[in-house]
Amino acid sequence: MSAGTIHGVGLGSGDPDLMTVRAHRLLTNARHVAYFRKAGREGQARKIIEGLLRPDVIEFPMEYPVTTEIALGDPAYNEQLSGFYAECAAHLLALAKGGEDVVVLSEGDPFFYGSFMHIYTRVRDHVPVQVVPAVTGMSAAWSATGEPITWGDDILTVLMATLSVEELTARMKTTDALVVMKIGRNIDKVREALKAAGKFDDAWLVEYASMPEQTVQKLSETQGRAVPYFSIVIVHGQGRRP
Amino acid sequence: MSAGTIHGVGLGSGDPDLMTVRAHRLLTNARHVAYFRKAGREGQARKIIEGLLRPDVIEFPMEYPVTTEIALGDPAYNEQLSGFYAECAAHLLALAKGGEDVVVLSEGDPFFYGSFMHIYTRVRDHVPVQVVPAVTGMSAAWSATGEPITWGDDILTVLMATLSVEELTARMKTTDALVVMKIGRNIDKVREALKAAGKFDDAWLVEYASMPEQTVQKLSETQGRAVPYFSIVIVHGQGRRP
Repeated sequence: MSAGTIHGVGLGSGDPDLMTVRAHRLLTNARHVAYFRKAGREGQARKIIEGLLRPDVIEFPMEYPVTTEIALGDPAYNEQLSGFYAECAAHLLALAKGGEDVVVLSEGDPFFYGSFMHIYTRVRDHVPVQVVPAVTGMSAAWSATGEPITWGDDILTVLMATLSVEELTARMKTTDALVVMKIGRNIDKVREALKAAGKFDDAWLVEYASMPEQTVQKLSETQGRAVPYFSIVIVHGQGRRP
Repeated sequence: MSAGTIHGVGLGSGDPDLMTVRAHRLLTNARHVAYFRKAGREGQARKIIEGLLRPDVIEFPMEYPVTTEIALGDPAYNEQLSGFYAECAAHLLALAKGGEDVVVLSEGDPFFYGSFMHIYTRVRDHVPVQVVPAVTGMSAAWSATGEPITWGDDILTVLMATLSVEELTARMKTTDALVVMKIGRNIDKVREALKAAGKFDDAWLVEYASMPEQTVQKLSETQGRAVPYFSIVIVHGQGRRP
């Protein structure tokens, strides 16, 4: 018996209509679908594909043992997550070695800060793995602002809001176009860094890009307000345009 | 009579199977399809959609009056291009004002260094315009390498190879993950900058990502060879991974 394939399928930014044709085909034909979620939640990835799956699909929800309860820097965080990913990978490997194809969902693009990467490194040497790229959340976010993100020779920098305020400030100062992701509880730090970099007034906040709850506004209009994890800050480049 | 809509439709990285479901639907239903190309060529965008259009589609090829014959810095370059975009926009506006919907193709994502942006700024205030984000060429390129581009807090920098070797070197030195686009005739400068930044041995070259002619190799294995315009250089981030 030949092994099945593990497909790391990017779902795109959240709107099912922005899924690729390939992702849509793989999903609607899949017998096995796996996805990450927080325990007790439906999960964003599962929500995106609602209504698309075969009636006889077998779902494998992979529930994070920890999300924000332990600090990122704590060795216990890495240890728990590492064990969790190893268990998930073992289950998916067993399916594939048994001849089954499995679709593993990934929000956004699987190789761009994607959760699938942690499965990928643990299964790639053992069974066939295919990765389907996708529309990133940042593409949906800059599209939602109605302004192009980069022109001509503009330099684009993508930053995680989890970086220090000093690092964020230095990088924001020296780029033409800017994307900041993983905002959530880091929003005050992002505001502070943008102000220090002189870019606060040009920054946009997009929440839930391309999802039904989408909001788009200047960041300066959200002072003090909390924002969800699925938020992206955008500063547009102003490069050459004929 | 109400005006038609101009749809700026991202085709994605080149594989029609990586088009979004929305782009596919808009294209296969379109009565009017416009796209850029070099005079005398079929054009990359047109090639991607071969076989998908309605039999009664009306095509509007927009042929660049100049590509590399005049230097980017020459004022004549901007002037010629600007006049060309204005003519194209006028034609598309006339269609939309006459009640027709028009699909304008854009390779990659329309708002990410996309040619559609030059039409967009000239029509947005006059008729309804919708932009469909897409899989970027860089997503297809890093997916093709089989390695994730960014982990944890990795900083991603996107550079155009048209920048000076000094600027390229400085930016390459200080980023975790790197994407360089618009390579073509700038490849020697990119090689020089990567060497000066100490990243040459880690760099990958992806030609025609996700297209039938795709090649993937370490840049160091291509020494001295010319590369096509549709080439992307990738250096993967090495950030935190549980």
